Amino acid sequence: MNSFGEHIKLTTFGESHGVALGGVIEGFPAGVEIDLNFIQSELDRRKPSHHKASTTRKESDRVEVLSGIFEGKTLGTPIAFIIRNENQQPDDYEYLREIFRPGHADFTYEKKYGHYDHRSGGRASARETASRVAAGAFAKTILQKKGVEITASIKQIGTAKTPEEIEHLIEQTKAEGDSLGGIIECVIKGCPAGVGEPVFGKLQAQLAEAMMSIPAAKGFEYGEGFASATMKGSEHNDVYILDEYGTDETSAPAGNVKPATNHNGGILGGISTGQDIIFRVAFKPIASISKPQQTVDKKGNPIELVNQGRHDVCCVPRVLPVVEAMTALVILDRSFFL
Amino acid sequence: MNSFGEHIKLTTFGESHGVALGGVIEGFPAGVEIDLNFIQSELDRRKPSHHKASTTRKESDRVEVLSGIFEGKTLGTPIAFIIRNENQQPDDYEYLREIFRPGHADFTYEKKYGHYDHRSGGRASARETASRVAAGAFAKTILQKKGVEITASIKQIGTAKTPEEIEHLIEQTKAEGDSLGGIIECVIKGCPAGVGEPVFGKLQAQLAEAMMSIPAAKGFEYGEGFASATMKGSEHNDVYILDEYGTDETSAPAGNVKPATNHNGGILGGISTGQDIIFRVAFKPIASISKPQQTVDKKGNPIELVNQGRHDVCCVPRVLPVVEAMTALVILDRSFFL
Amino acid sequence: MNSFGEHIKLTTFGESHGVALGGVIEGFPAGVEIDLNFIQSELDRRKPSHHKASTTRKESDRVEVLSGIFEGKTLGTPIAFIIRNENQQPDDYEYLREIFRPGHADFTYEKKYGHYDHRSGGRASARETASRVAAGAFAKTILQKKGVEITASIKQIGTAKTPEEIEHLIEQTKAEGDSLGGIIECVIKGCPAGVGEPVFGKLQAQLAEAMMSIPAAKGFEYGEGFASATMKGSEHNDVYILDEYGTDETSAPAGNVKPATNHNGGILGGISTGQDIIFRVAFKPIASISKPQQTVDKKGNPIELVNQGRHDVCCVPRVLPVVEAMTALVILDRSFFL
Amino acid sequence: MNSFGEHIKLTTFGESHGVALGGVIEGFPAGVEIDLNFIQSELDRRKPSHHKASTTRKESDRVEVLSGIFEGKTLGTPIAFIIRNENQQPDDYEYLREIFRPGHADFTYEKKYGHYDHRSGGRASARETASRVAAGAFAKTILQKKGVEITASIKQIGTAKTPEEIEHLIEQTKAEGDSLGGIIECVIKGCPAGVGEPVFGKLQAQLAEAMMSIPAAKGFEYGEGFASATMKGSEHNDVYILDEYGTDETSAPAGNVKPATNHNGGILGGISTGQDIIFRVAFKPIASISKPQQTVDKKGNPIELVNQGRHDVCCVPRVLPVVEAMTALVILDRSFFL
Repeated sequence: MNSFGEHIKLTTFGESHGVALGGVIEGFPAGVEIDLNFIQSELDRRKPSHHKASTTRKESDRVEVLSGIFEGKTLGTPIAFIIRNENQQPDDYEYLREIFRPGHADFTYEKKYGHYDHRSGGRASARETASRVAAGAFAKTILQKKGVEITASIKQIGTAKTPEEIEHLIEQTKAEGDSLGGIIECVIKGCPAGVGEPVFGKLQAQLAEAMMSIPAAKGFEYGEGFASATMKGSEHNDVYILDEYGTDETSAPAGNVKPATNHNGGILGGISTGQDIIFRVAFKPIASISKPQQTVDKKGNPIELVNQGRHDVCCVPRVLPVVEAMTALVILDRSFFL
Repeated sequence: MNSFGEHIKLTTFGESHGVALGGVIEGFPAGVEIDLNFIQSELDRRKPSHHKASTTRKESDRVEVLSGIFEGKTLGTPIAFIIRNENQQPDDYEYLREIFRPGHADFTYEKKYGHYDHRSGGRASARETASRVAAGAFAKTILQKKGVEITASIKQIGTAKTPEEIEHLIEQTKAEGDSLGGIIECVIKGCPAGVGEPVFGKLQAQLAEAMMSIPAAKGFEYGEGFASATMKGSEHNDVYILDEYGTDETSAPAGNVKPATNHNGGILGGISTGQDIIFRVAFKPIASISKPQQTVDKKGNPIELVNQGRHDVCCVPRVLPVVEAMTALVILDRSFFL
Repeated sequence: MNSFGEHIKLTTFGESHGVALGGVIEGFPAGVEIDLNFIQSELDRRKPSHHKASTTRKESDRVEVLSGIFEGKTLGTPIAFIIRNENQQPDDYEYLREIFRPGHADFTYEKKYGHYDHRSGGRASARETASRVAAGAFAKTILQKKGVEITASIKQIGTAKTPEEIEHLIEQTKAEGDSLGGIIECVIKGCPAGVGEPVFGKLQAQLAEAMMSIPAAKGFEYGEGFASATMKGSEHNDVYILDEYGTDETSAPAGNVKPATNHNGGILGGISTGQDIIFRVAFKPIASISKPQQTVDKKGNPIELVNQGRHDVCCVPRVLPVVEAMTALVILDRSFFL
Repeated sequence: MNSFGEHIKLTTFGESHGVALGGVIEGFPAGVEIDLNFIQSELDRRKPSHHKASTTRKESDRVEVLSGIFEGKTLGTPIAFIIRNENQQPDDYEYLREIFRPGHADFTYEKKYGHYDHRSGGRASARETASRVAAGAFAKTILQKKGVEITASIKQIGTAKTPEEIEHLIEQTKAEGDSLGGIIECVIKGCPAGVGEPVFGKLQAQLAEAMMSIPAAKGFEYGEGFASATMKGSEHNDVYILDEYGTDETSAPAGNVKPATNHNGGILGGISTGQDIIFRVAFKPIASISKPQQTVDKKGNPIELVNQGRHDVCCVPRVLPVVEAMTALVILDRSFFL
């Protein structure tokens, strides 16, 4: 369960405190020009930056490609890349050895494996998503040439929806030693009609699986989503109109007929319509907070837990490139034959 | 993309207007006693019944098992079953030949395949879910013996939340020739801790994929779901307490320590905690309505579409066993080694 | 492990003494005209016939297609078919209940599963190959249209190589109550160059796996096979010549250059060359013989086993369509993108 | 098609003249002590050594493990390892740019991909098997603890069968500028009964696929193999005897009854019997020879090809660890649940 995708398959490896992270991409077509600066720049978007919501930890995250590229072009062979880990300070985490951190995977790892990595999660660490972002950048390279643009943006952080409100809320919450959740909206423009499969391989099912595999994601919806539950069929149905000017190339096989509205979020019956594909992902607040928490240690002794590490206030800004990367992997995988 | 699951794999086949539907279940363990009456009774739950929200079409849906069972017990070999189709009246659908029905898969099928089955959807028809319900009943048989109970219930239909309100709203909407969406909540009781995988195989990702593969599903959330976006870490984190009475068997490997609350919906880091697993699925209103719709035919000529078939007002009541079946398949597949 | 193939996937089901055998073919393209008489005729080739090597058991083996075909053409949806079992006389096998039949899977099934099906093997029965022959006939339908012809023929039965020798040897062996093995050679004509993958998906690896999954197969070789072990590089290498007349369409992408000889059996580096693909499969003598065998029962008591059933003297004639079917499934699966 | 195995899955990457080769092993159990010296020593067995059949090229082949091991033990997470390439002299191969080397994959790569890597094969190079040997060493580590010993040995090189004959033949052939093929026999001792699956997952099918994926392999047989074709059932059947001394632990579930002989090579009905598993693999002579070959270049001009590189006379000695590694991967994968 370290692989994702069928035609374009990513396998990730690496613990957050091991020698290196990385991935192998199989099925990537030959002859694609790769700009390594672009791959690196996508990774940089995930780094703890000057954004107020982020930790001050330093991670350089330089990607090295080991195979699959020759003279700047892909060979059609597996693309392997690694990102060496630096700045390993396991002692930072020593005080957590006897504690299940609330909201983290420690408790379930112990239940499943009989042990867990108190050095910050091993494979469960959000650091694993660096490999996804690198792989997603390869996928984006192809999609961009085909005119597919994927853009994730912040819909809300906590209850705040405008940049000013968000900045203010983050500062206030940081001062309280607390953390925030949020909602990301992702729009795919230029995805051709016909992507997705009718039964188990519905495009929304693939996107939902991809999004819910991102740490801290708690919900997924597309088109009208949960709001559709209170709409009537006559409101929700997208009736068809004649596209008089025929500007919409994607409607070609069915003449100039196209949906007049997009309540369905660009997917009908599991297959893309050629309209914008729109979905949202909800993220819970970050589990590591500096505010004291009343909990018990592994033996049941009451303790007051105060996190000492440097942590983000909200994961949402750093998750944006992860949402885009997973989306790019899904769309490239599912549009493989188009 | 007609298969679901890894260790316990279901492959479904059959068009809604063909000879038969059915499925093959691979990986099902040997020696399990099967009550065919239970399998049939689960299928019966999906039938258009006297429920006010349902069509008056008659479907007998008798399941026949072809292999994998001998003298009432499973052999460990593939279990194949079929449900023959009856009551095929393709002429009923003749008037739809030149129309993309709003909200249906006709438009995207035409885009993808260059043709579609105007006789009500082929594989896209919700009738395909009958095979899932039959397979889910086999999965439930094992899970029930292990003490795992899966219950899907109606959380709301349209804006109505109580039986009286729901009944009233359905009658009113039926009279209007319109349709309703709704939200289903599913609770899994007795699922042991340790089900699910850390990276791409997170339990919530598998459940989300399963739910979003059900026709008309528009959103998935677990635990606090979308509401978690506006919570703070100090509110959302489930701290740990000592389970003094040690009644909770599932907490054994970690002593008597257990989460005090369940904001996380029974899953942490992709792995079940041993608590109740709780998730919700949003469904859009049924696309087929008798209320006239102003749309265009395939050539772009404006028409007023009035559906002549008998249709459900809301899919939610009939989807309950489908949600339970897909959940059972996920949990059995993912707890295979426990 | 009841499935075979990646792009065109066959899943088989059914016990030799259950209700029915059958299969589901996924990934089969839409719009292919299917001649059900051809499917049936391929199945008939596997039936115990007047061939002197075969049993006198009667098996009608009528195939019924349940899905995936509409008005004589494939829909692109899963093709499910069944073959109902007849003539079930489990009492015929009652005397075998306490015995591991020499050369059969009884012993290993008991070791693996703690039980076995004394009614003639369950899934281990060669009867399972009927589903493969039916599926192979669908695959052949496409391949024939593309000009690919697959022909398996008897290379030798026992030590006999000509029809007269073979007929004589079979009669003699039948009189002795004994059985014979043999070698089948299969030639694929018209397979385009480029089929097969470089590393683990080599065409010879896929063919070897397919052939060694046929009951009683003991060896596989292609091209010069085992004989190549005693050849020198200068003898075995296929040098290249100019194909002056350019009649060989398959050599087009590399101009008119082609291998002068075919020691490599039509495959180089795991990929087809466009020449005839030639391989051979060795089969052991049938395990069920009427000649008395000195063995012990399950408790270790010495017994003289005399098989009472009607059995083939040699499986080779009936295996020919199975070899062709498995070959067709491999070639269609592997040439999917060509 | 760069992955092998189902429960224990190896994915390999790397071109023979790229930055590095390597692999990722998924599904490897946690808590296994790993001796990196043993992993390296297995790799060293594959290196061109003082063996007279081998090239004098220098390859240091140092393995570096990037993930999956912590404090000398496996974590249960993916094990990634790399072997950096050295000694890259692409100019050595410049004279081959316009030639399809006889017996190599150049011709089929050009047919399939429209190009090939004249720098000695890219992924087709036998150098890719270094990753398999490293992964096989991990698999052997577990199998050895379970008492499973896998030993591949030279059965013959050319027509020579004794060390003296072999040495003499190799020297003579080297002097002629020619090359030799051979046969390797592999014996698996201590494999428990019950490994393998009845239908498509037969143990012999998995072994055949694994062996035929090794470059230069031309044939596979197990037990009596091709010789069984000329045996009678009464000769080939392994009757059962009472194992009076009960020394054979593996026969436990069936009491003390065991096969008296092993014509079947340790596999019956696709499942291991608990006896030694014995199979043989035929390899063709190495394609690169220094003896002049009359062939044509890519344009059809007659040329005399004289290989300038340093090449092995026979691959068989260096292939022994590859055969063992692929066998170990199959047996570990297939005995995963035992």
